[in-house]
Amino acid sequence: MQDRVNKVTPKTLPGFMELLPNEQILFNQMMETIKSSYERYGFLPIDTPIIESSEVLLAKAGGETEKQVYSFMKGDNNLALRFDLTVPLAKYVAANYNELSFPFRRYQIGKVYRGERAQRGRFREFYQCDIDVIGEGELDIVNDAEIPSIIYKTFSDLGLEDFTVKINNRKILNGLFSHVLGGETNLGSEIMRVIDKIEKIGEDNVRKELAEIGLTEEAINYVIDFIKIKGTTDEKIDALKCLNIENQIVTQGIEELEGVVKHIRMFGVPEDCFEVDLTIARGLDYYTGTVYETFLNEYKSIGSICSGGRYNDLAEYYTDKKLPGVGISIGLTRLFFILNEIGLIKAKEKSISKVLVVSMIDDLTKSIEIANELREAGINAEIYFDNSKKIKAKFKYADKLHIPYVVIIGEDEIKSGKYTIKNMETGEQVQTEIAEILNMMKQ
Amino acid sequence: MQDRVNKVTPKTLPGFMELLPNEQILFNQMMETIKSSYERYGFLPIDTPIIESSEVLLAKAGGETEKQVYSFMKGDNNLALRFDLTVPLAKYVAANYNELSFPFRRYQIGKVYRGERAQRGRFREFYQCDIDVIGEGELDIVNDAEIPSIIYKTFSDLGLEDFTVKINNRKILNGLFSHVLGGETNLGSEIMRVIDKIEKIGEDNVRKELAEIGLTEEAINYVIDFIKIKGTTDEKIDALKCLNIENQIVTQGIEELEGVVKHIRMFGVPEDCFEVDLTIARGLDYYTGTVYETFLNEYKSIGSICSGGRYNDLAEYYTDKKLPGVGISIGLTRLFFILNEIGLIKAKEKSISKVLVVSMIDDLTKSIEIANELREAGINAEIYFDNSKKIKAKFKYADKLHIPYVVIIGEDEIKSGKYTIKNMETGEQVQTEIAEILNMMKQ
Repeated sequence: MQDRVNKVTPKTLPGFMELLPNEQILFNQMMETIKSSYERYGFLPIDTPIIESSEVLLAKAGGETEKQVYSFMKGDNNLALRFDLTVPLAKYVAANYNELSFPFRRYQIGKVYRGERAQRGRFREFYQCDIDVIGEGELDIVNDAEIPSIIYKTFSDLGLEDFTVKINNRKILNGLFSHVLGGETNLGSEIMRVIDKIEKIGEDNVRKELAEIGLTEEAINYVIDFIKIKGTTDEKIDALKCLNIENQIVTQGIEELEGVVKHIRMFGVPEDCFEVDLTIARGLDYYTGTVYETFLNEYKSIGSICSGGRYNDLAEYYTDKKLPGVGISIGLTRLFFILNEIGLIKAKEKSISKVLVVSMIDDLTKSIEIANELREAGINAEIYFDNSKKIKAKFKYADKLHIPYVVIIGEDEIKSGKYTIKNMETGEQVQTEIAEILNMMKQ
Repeated sequence: MQDRVNKVTPKTLPGFMELLPNEQILFNQMMETIKSSYERYGFLPIDTPIIESSEVLLAKAGGETEKQVYSFMKGDNNLALRFDLTVPLAKYVAANYNELSFPFRRYQIGKVYRGERAQRGRFREFYQCDIDVIGEGELDIVNDAEIPSIIYKTFSDLGLEDFTVKINNRKILNGLFSHVLGGETNLGSEIMRVIDKIEKIGEDNVRKELAEIGLTEEAINYVIDFIKIKGTTDEKIDALKCLNIENQIVTQGIEELEGVVKHIRMFGVPEDCFEVDLTIARGLDYYTGTVYETFLNEYKSIGSICSGGRYNDLAEYYTDKKLPGVGISIGLTRLFFILNEIGLIKAKEKSISKVLVVSMIDDLTKSIEIANELREAGINAEIYFDNSKKIKAKFKYADKLHIPYVVIIGEDEIKSGKYTIKNMETGEQVQTEIAEILNMMKQ
């Protein structure tokens, strides 16, 4: 074996995040914070397979999504890796409909796969952290208001401060487009594309382009008045009402939005952490009511870090049962990458071990005894076993791993019953009894 | 959409575990317990991709393993899903050698994939929970003794009582075979196969079969004396020594085993939770020293629920660096399945929410206020929003989800400032102030 020559290069695929332990600790703390926050609101955990049959996973997909999916044959089976957690949820709810209690509040945190073009900060394997509330036939609109309060709580728990949850209702846009164009239309996305350019090309050019795609003068006026709505959340809702758009869908959308805003305040979300933004749309067919996007105010170019919304029917491809829902997703891998780059990750602990036990003598009896006592008291501790190493190497090990304390066990210590404990950050050393060390560590 | 007729059956692939939320809660508690136990001993987390290039993943594999691997092409890339966490660890340590501190103590909990023949209790996607300690050039034998103490602690934390960690040292078997057969031999596995049958076919027939595969009378005597060794751990080690096998490897193996047993006791593992078992081998080429298997004493037929051992060189396929290590793996998916079947899972909590807040009135101000206060106090709570449902339906919801307490908010409650809290298990109801409810829930 010694003279084996052909080594394989130990490389990880591009687009797949693999962290060093010190970064993994931070990543896991973020994941743990999100999980705790979701559980705080009573969401139930589920865990679905990463591999599903292609038939199930791609029942709805098409176009761009389908091209990105990892799919393959295994024996006679056409398999695929999940590309989000929503399709597996739909399958899960349809398959387990009779066993579940509704409203079904579930969270799922897991890896998903998309064969995107590899580029910096884009990942082919990434964690999504999703919550959804699924109703049986109907789902109260107050759920749409609780979701932003959970986003607010979760990001606050992550140590983020300057962020805004933007809220809109798709019925307003849908109704408006249908109203100004008369009846059903699929020009919606084109209109959105044009009005998105208003800051770049100015109002006059937007008017011209809207005319080119076939809007009447009156329709254009409606659209321009609509996108010009500015102000506080309440001012926007008032201005919307003043547009007097005589369309039932628009009216319903405004009513829902008003109800959502009222309850968001009840949930205690501060005014500067949410706002109504009438231009956010989140794709044109999946979402049917409330929609959310979340931005770091100082880093808007990153795009939304948490998005979602209300949908009419979760699982129409699998069941006749009507299952309306509302949910959001945090793309944790990308969020971690970004926050790590801009230095916004707040570490709770930088190490796993709180104490490194170092023995100056070969007999490990006392070292093991002390490590055991620390662990019994709930304190993470490890022993440096290799006594061929010098004390300096052992301190260096603690230092590199950011272990905050080293306990030193030598002959003198055993005789006196007082052990040296060194604070690795301050360099301070004290000699004291085990009971006192336990007390210090528990604080 | 309403009249869509072709529904896809929402089925999960065979061999893939998908749990209902009440079981998922138990599964997650087990995983959390294992994670905490591993961290208690200072193991660092890593998370490697599920997809690797086939070249990297299969650098060493062959035979049965390779046949079971999920592999596929994506573009021009030959990819594969990881089938264990050891090969990714080898790649990780070789790739990040200069950034890591040694001994490198890492844990990893994640899904792995094997296309085994589907049968009840066997899974194609399953969680492994691994710890390994990797040395740089060398690794102290005390690590081999700490591992069984971690197994002991982990299974105790999982609420298991009647289990035994069996320990052996491969050098004893290897040296014995080499000694009795003269020099290097690959008859080891055949000899093992024959002696495994001794309880079925009796000593005489074992002697005959050993002769058939070419062992001399003297060699057979050694093997039979060896496998007849019985008694306590100390008696076995003494008997081993009395065999006087003049072979350096055997001597070294006995010495290591003795050292490991001595330190296992130091770590505080009770005598009835571990034993030396000279017959366990764990495959013939990977492990080179100490080996472990763990059995539930009343369910031995299940096989080992936690196995591992010492290896000379973790990453010889990727690097020239010598990286000896010792580790174990718990196959959590199968373990959960088995413990769930035989009723050995101890639930810490059966629900996520501790409190369901139920409003008897449409104004949710007070309900949201109380839920917020509970959450601020660290208590998982949810509100039943749908007021079209009767109170009975709301209690049923709490019941099905095993939520232990329901707080009821009605007009009388708001007027008096005393809210009804119902213990769902006992049916007991009391009326009290919010501060008192918070106190009750915190206990």
